[in-house]
Amino acid sequence: MTHLRYLTAGESHGPSLTAILEGMPSGLALSIADINHQLARRQKGYGRGGRMKIETDEVEITSGVRHALTLGSPISLLIQNRDWKNWQEEMSVASSAVPPKRVVTRPRPGHADLVGGIKYDFRDLRNVLERASARETTARVACGAIARRLLEEFDIHLAGHVIAVGNIRSQAPTATAMEILAKTEDSPLRCLDSQAEARMLALVDEAKKKGDSLGGIFEIVVDGLPPGLGSYVQWDRKLDGKLAQAILSIQAVKGVDLTVGEGELVCLIGANGA
Amino acid sequence: MTHLRYLTAGESHGPSLTAILEGMPSGLALSIADINHQLARRQKGYGRGGRMKIETDEVEITSGVRHALTLGSPISLLIQNRDWKNWQEEMSVASSAVPPKRVVTRPRPGHADLVGGIKYDFRDLRNVLERASARETTARVACGAIARRLLEEFDIHLAGHVIAVGNIRSQAPTATAMEILAKTEDSPLRCLDSQAEARMLALVDEAKKKGDSLGGIFEIVVDGLPPGLGSYVQWDRKLDGKLAQAILSIQAVKGVDLTVGEGELVCLIGANGA
Amino acid sequence: MTHLRYLTAGESHGPSLTAILEGMPSGLALSIADINHQLARRQKGYGRGGRMKIETDEVEITSGVRHALTLGSPISLLIQNRDWKNWQEEMSVASSAVPPKRVVTRPRPGHADLVGGIKYDFRDLRNVLERASARETTARVACGAIARRLLEEFDIHLAGHVIAVGNIRSQAPTATAMEILAKTEDSPLRCLDSQAEARMLALVDEAKKKGDSLGGIFEIVVDGLPPGLGSYVQWDRKLDGKLAQAILSIQAVKGVDLTVGEGELVCLIGANGA
Amino acid sequence: MTHLRYLTAGESHGPSLTAILEGMPSGLALSIADINHQLARRQKGYGRGGRMKIETDEVEITSGVRHALTLGSPISLLIQNRDWKNWQEEMSVASSAVPPKRVVTRPRPGHADLVGGIKYDFRDLRNVLERASARETTARVACGAIARRLLEEFDIHLAGHVIAVGNIRSQAPTATAMEILAKTEDSPLRCLDSQAEARMLALVDEAKKKGDSLGGIFEIVVDGLPPGLGSYVQWDRKLDGKLAQAILSIQAVKGVDLTVGEGELVCLIGANGA
Repeated sequence: MTHLRYLTAGESHGPSLTAILEGMPSGLALSIADINHQLARRQKGYGRGGRMKIETDEVEITSGVRHALTLGSPISLLIQNRDWKNWQEEMSVASSAVPPKRVVTRPRPGHADLVGGIKYDFRDLRNVLERASARETTARVACGAIARRLLEEFDIHLAGHVIAVGNIRSQAPTATAMEILAKTEDSPLRCLDSQAEARMLALVDEAKKKGDSLGGIFEIVVDGLPPGLGSYVQWDRKLDGKLAQAILSIQAVKGVDLTVGEGELVCLIGANGA
Repeated sequence: MTHLRYLTAGESHGPSLTAILEGMPSGLALSIADINHQLARRQKGYGRGGRMKIETDEVEITSGVRHALTLGSPISLLIQNRDWKNWQEEMSVASSAVPPKRVVTRPRPGHADLVGGIKYDFRDLRNVLERASARETTARVACGAIARRLLEEFDIHLAGHVIAVGNIRSQAPTATAMEILAKTEDSPLRCLDSQAEARMLALVDEAKKKGDSLGGIFEIVVDGLPPGLGSYVQWDRKLDGKLAQAILSIQAVKGVDLTVGEGELVCLIGANGA
Repeated sequence: MTHLRYLTAGESHGPSLTAILEGMPSGLALSIADINHQLARRQKGYGRGGRMKIETDEVEITSGVRHALTLGSPISLLIQNRDWKNWQEEMSVASSAVPPKRVVTRPRPGHADLVGGIKYDFRDLRNVLERASARETTARVACGAIARRLLEEFDIHLAGHVIAVGNIRSQAPTATAMEILAKTEDSPLRCLDSQAEARMLALVDEAKKKGDSLGGIFEIVVDGLPPGLGSYVQWDRKLDGKLAQAILSIQAVKGVDLTVGEGELVCLIGANGA
Repeated sequence: MTHLRYLTAGESHGPSLTAILEGMPSGLALSIADINHQLARRQKGYGRGGRMKIETDEVEITSGVRHALTLGSPISLLIQNRDWKNWQEEMSVASSAVPPKRVVTRPRPGHADLVGGIKYDFRDLRNVLERASARETTARVACGAIARRLLEEFDIHLAGHVIAVGNIRSQAPTATAMEILAKTEDSPLRCLDSQAEARMLALVDEAKKKGDSLGGIFEIVVDGLPPGLGSYVQWDRKLDGKLAQAILSIQAVKGVDLTVGEGELVCLIGANGA
């Protein structure tokens, strides 16, 4: 197998998100439903903004798959913005007779607004936040859903669950990825400890009322990984470093803790409230 | 400016071609017309297959540009396949009740059919030729049109012209890129020597009658390049090597000759008839 | 400035460590003393094995610098192993008449021994531990010392200090990098809180007696960074992700926490005792 | 097998050349003699400068090989400059009390002197020519010798021979790599046609008398390559492009022509006299 690589593109309120994923082997069974299932999981969660509710993201595969099998060629993914009709003028590619109305000139703390505006020389910080937005993770989830399909062929499964929100911590014992998937699918916070979860939900409600948000910690567990991934021979081939880059590149994630359990790789990942 | 990179995706008869181009600075004026102009130039030429005539490629910019200025974020480009309605079942992403009809089992010499079939384990070589097709260059031309826009801001211009087809050679003296652009826009072969061109056209007609094709040589001239591009410090940073990779990665190009004229960079590039 | 890149090479008990660093601009003042100063700082610390004491690492610059100024070309660094005479047969490049004596067949927990042996098909796990060793960080420190020289030209300074060993935590208030450098140079653990440090030292002694080791946390503070490093436009260009990869690629580091203070970038980095 | 990569470092009259090659599998038989054999072949040739004669390059392997087998870790190579004693002050890493004597202020046509001086801001163009020198290919040949060792395990062999010098062309029929190796080892120009070679030698002598040099063409033939190297799926994964970059990155090479023969890959590579 060749090295996997991917690029994503798309503004949060633009017409669509695009991703190109390359390096998947040929002959892998892949359907739109495999990806849409993960996109729907991404849209769950408690205490989110209204946008997550009105949209149900659906992917189009526009290359790299034929008759439900991958071709080895780049897989391109398109996710339409369902709210595009309301943003066509504001986010128009062409110059517009109407000046933009939803201009953002006050940078929000904890976001890329200010540094992005300085770096790219923008007065309207919408030009930053449209791309720095967590909406971009939709395209990553779509690519990740394909990577999951490949891992499934080798009986490798991964799952995440929330172990802390604010100062409330799950007391549930560690579980395998398959157990986590089975137990958390209906949990609003994907938390294995339902008593802790009830208190977490209350804390979220409280923060929301104040117009605040909360940090938390989630754990990712992977079942069935073979030994020998990555290598110690050079700094940029170490698995720990690659995982850390992937995880810290996610919007709002501020820390990672990698610990190897018995036959499992566990990441504790903290996100700041902002 | 950061490093430019791009990926293309798309099968020749799939629903669309996609490209993501990243690394363009923000604030560059860019319109769809800039790109469509180059796509139309690509579709000119003499002796091509019928497909080039029925389609007029048009690009959609789906990210990275707002109100006619680049945002510094990845620019995604979409070029619909105008003939898609005739290929929807054959090239369907989903598995199809109808078995494919346009199956290719006999590999064509001089193409990737055979090695692609071996490498990716295909019986239907359509799975290879759909991606190995020269149709893919459409996405590259679209990305290149954006790079041209950037170069224009620095008064850097580039143009190509045909200097040989089969054994017939243009006798026209060297010209600047701006002169070549002005003189060859209406020439069916983009040749500066109209007498040689008449003989080249006859040779193409003759080859076509025999079901054959012809090799040729084209020259690319760049005006206005500053000194100091690339570097001698490491093998993979040399400009000659980077240009050679870019050019030899084009379908059917089999050779390159780099010679630096006075204030100009000249490439002679040979393509085999196949 | 072009992208910086570097590769290191060398086995722990081989003849020497080598690094090639490329991408430094030309005309930067650089001396051997700049690098040796950082190598000596690396060799400080409390509770280390005997090896750290007998060797005083010294670098040779074998390319990329002339008359105390960088040339823009790759900088190669060589650090001789002072103990090489005792390892010449054991680690000989050529095949040896004498069979190896210091063969390692029992993999140590928490190290790369087992997975390295499986991945690269070794019976003698010395072949793994010689490269997976923390000795390799010597070459990284040497490269980092050159990067520091560049940053100093822009009045950017960085410093690390220990904030926890085992369950003992420094109570000292946050400081700037310049303050940390001034205050911790004579501290055996580079800790700003001398009372906590005394207890940390006792804890280290205790662990050592048991043949055990301890985890801890250190903080890196950077003064004077300009805004706009990294970019939000693509997952692999985010500064957080790049920092996380660099840090988690260090032997024994298992976690990272990135928080941006006022005008400062702070990393909390945890290392497991193993 | 992971991706191979390598970096070279070293000024032509500096203390040594260094290379780090990474990505070779473990367990490959490798000796210093394998590399020195290729370094000696590099030093043959007709009409070269005096330097090629006085030196016999010898490599030291300083990492990545133990008891004649590769370790999978980076292989570092060191080639001492035998003439270093005469250049110690001129090329000193430390600042020198004695000002440089062999200062180069007149850029040579056809070399990197002028653009390098502009790009890196040098008055003494020795700072450019020391790195832009063809001496750097010594380090590449050393890396290439290791790659050859790997290919030999798969019965893949490659050889080059000269097919043109100035306007004189070899009339010898094509041969396999093994035949070329057998027949050209004692030929001063590695030419299969001894009659043409005699005329080529006379032409070289003539050019030398005039203080001139000559262009030429050499062909590289590879025996035993399996199908499916490289890929058509993305522009930067095409074998033709990668080969072209590697070849055009060699000093003085100005063109490449890739044609696939029966079971063989043939490159015609032109070098300009300068």
